[in-house]
Amino acid sequence: MSVDRKLYEGKAKILYATDDPEVLVAHFKDDATAFNAAKRGRIVRKGEINCTISTHLFAQLESSGIPTHWIDTPKVDRMRVKAVKIIPLEVVVRNIAAGSLCRQTGISLGTPIEPPLVEFFYKNDELGDPLLTVDRLRLLNVATPEQIDRLRELALQVNRYLSTFFASCQITLVDFKLEFGTTSDAQIVLADEISPDTCRLWDRLETDPERRVMDKDRFRQDLGEVEAAYERVLERVLTRVEPR
Amino acid sequence: MSVDRKLYEGKAKILYATDDPEVLVAHFKDDATAFNAAKRGRIVRKGEINCTISTHLFAQLESSGIPTHWIDTPKVDRMRVKAVKIIPLEVVVRNIAAGSLCRQTGISLGTPIEPPLVEFFYKNDELGDPLLTVDRLRLLNVATPEQIDRLRELALQVNRYLSTFFASCQITLVDFKLEFGTTSDAQIVLADEISPDTCRLWDRLETDPERRVMDKDRFRQDLGEVEAAYERVLERVLTRVEPR
Repeated sequence: MSVDRKLYEGKAKILYATDDPEVLVAHFKDDATAFNAAKRGRIVRKGEINCTISTHLFAQLESSGIPTHWIDTPKVDRMRVKAVKIIPLEVVVRNIAAGSLCRQTGISLGTPIEPPLVEFFYKNDELGDPLLTVDRLRLLNVATPEQIDRLRELALQVNRYLSTFFASCQITLVDFKLEFGTTSDAQIVLADEISPDTCRLWDRLETDPERRVMDKDRFRQDLGEVEAAYERVLERVLTRVEPR
Repeated sequence: MSVDRKLYEGKAKILYATDDPEVLVAHFKDDATAFNAAKRGRIVRKGEINCTISTHLFAQLESSGIPTHWIDTPKVDRMRVKAVKIIPLEVVVRNIAAGSLCRQTGISLGTPIEPPLVEFFYKNDELGDPLLTVDRLRLLNVATPEQIDRLRELALQVNRYLSTFFASCQITLVDFKLEFGTTSDAQIVLADEISPDTCRLWDRLETDPERRVMDKDRFRQDLGEVEAAYERVLERVLTRVEPR
């Protein structure tokens, strides 16, 4: 794999250009940040783990008909992806109330949300990734109404697939954040990653509200055993992946 | 007017019970607060001015078919109002971008918004009055979908009426916040007040972006001449009120 120049370094990944303008390489880092990078740290093996989990989930989503940016994974912490223009939205799907939803509305942690909620946040660190209403989405013109409908539809499809998959791993998919991009032929594809950095995952084999947490909340809330939790998610995912 | 006991003291008004359970008295105070009461002060004659302006606007809105809680104004800073159950929402109508919309989305101050935006904020000081999406409104169950539609419709009616009225006063109605309540027979009526505390008002006779401000932003942003601005709004409103 020929890697040319660094195009962009984000909080958890570095993107490199390749000889092919349609292909980028995403390098998953061990760096961890939370609260809009106010909290910084490092989670050992996170890059490898998140790249591997994302690879398996993207591959399965592709098989189930959901287009993603994933091409292949030539190294354990490096993924070849389609060059897409990222839509500056964080699309959040919630099955159970947690995180900012609880902080902002007062709804209790753990409240089931039926039907699942799809929310849009403006991907803008300077503004602190604010929640957007449909009207504010329209006003900011970050996506067309048709694109918004498509994002919502794809997000719910991903949720159905992942909720079932994680349940089979004895993990509850509480909520997760997706990012999407548009390809050169204007197709909307799932981008970024799907990992314990971007999903809230609760271990169904644990009942204790702190011990069950298997995701970045362990880092955010200083719950300890962050690495062990990420490793456990990887292990559960790998045992459920169909041989290919 | 027989005033019984204090029912509730808010940041700008005190509500008293009367002999009639269907009637309350609202006393408008000179106290001023901003940023969820983090900033406090006093605006001389504000109680009288806001009560008088609100009286004229409520009377006109009633005449134009919009139900309000206003009954009459026996004293210059006291209004008799229908006893309603306040719906815990701040309904904000925006004709021009200002305030939290600009802070939260990065849209420039002064950007015209066409069609006008109706936004719902959860009236909850502890949570900092957060913006609510339609889905969060549904989840919090603070109003039924039918009530939300009705609130939106009433808010836009009020906006059409007030925009025209203020324009005739050489004032631009930038945005404003309404509160609504339900009467004992389940009718939704406009409540609270309509004043320079709750509206952003820009003087059309001024072009300077600070000098034109005729509302509580003078207090929020320490622009000075707060009292003079409130007096000027009152004067303009009074000269435009039809003799009754």
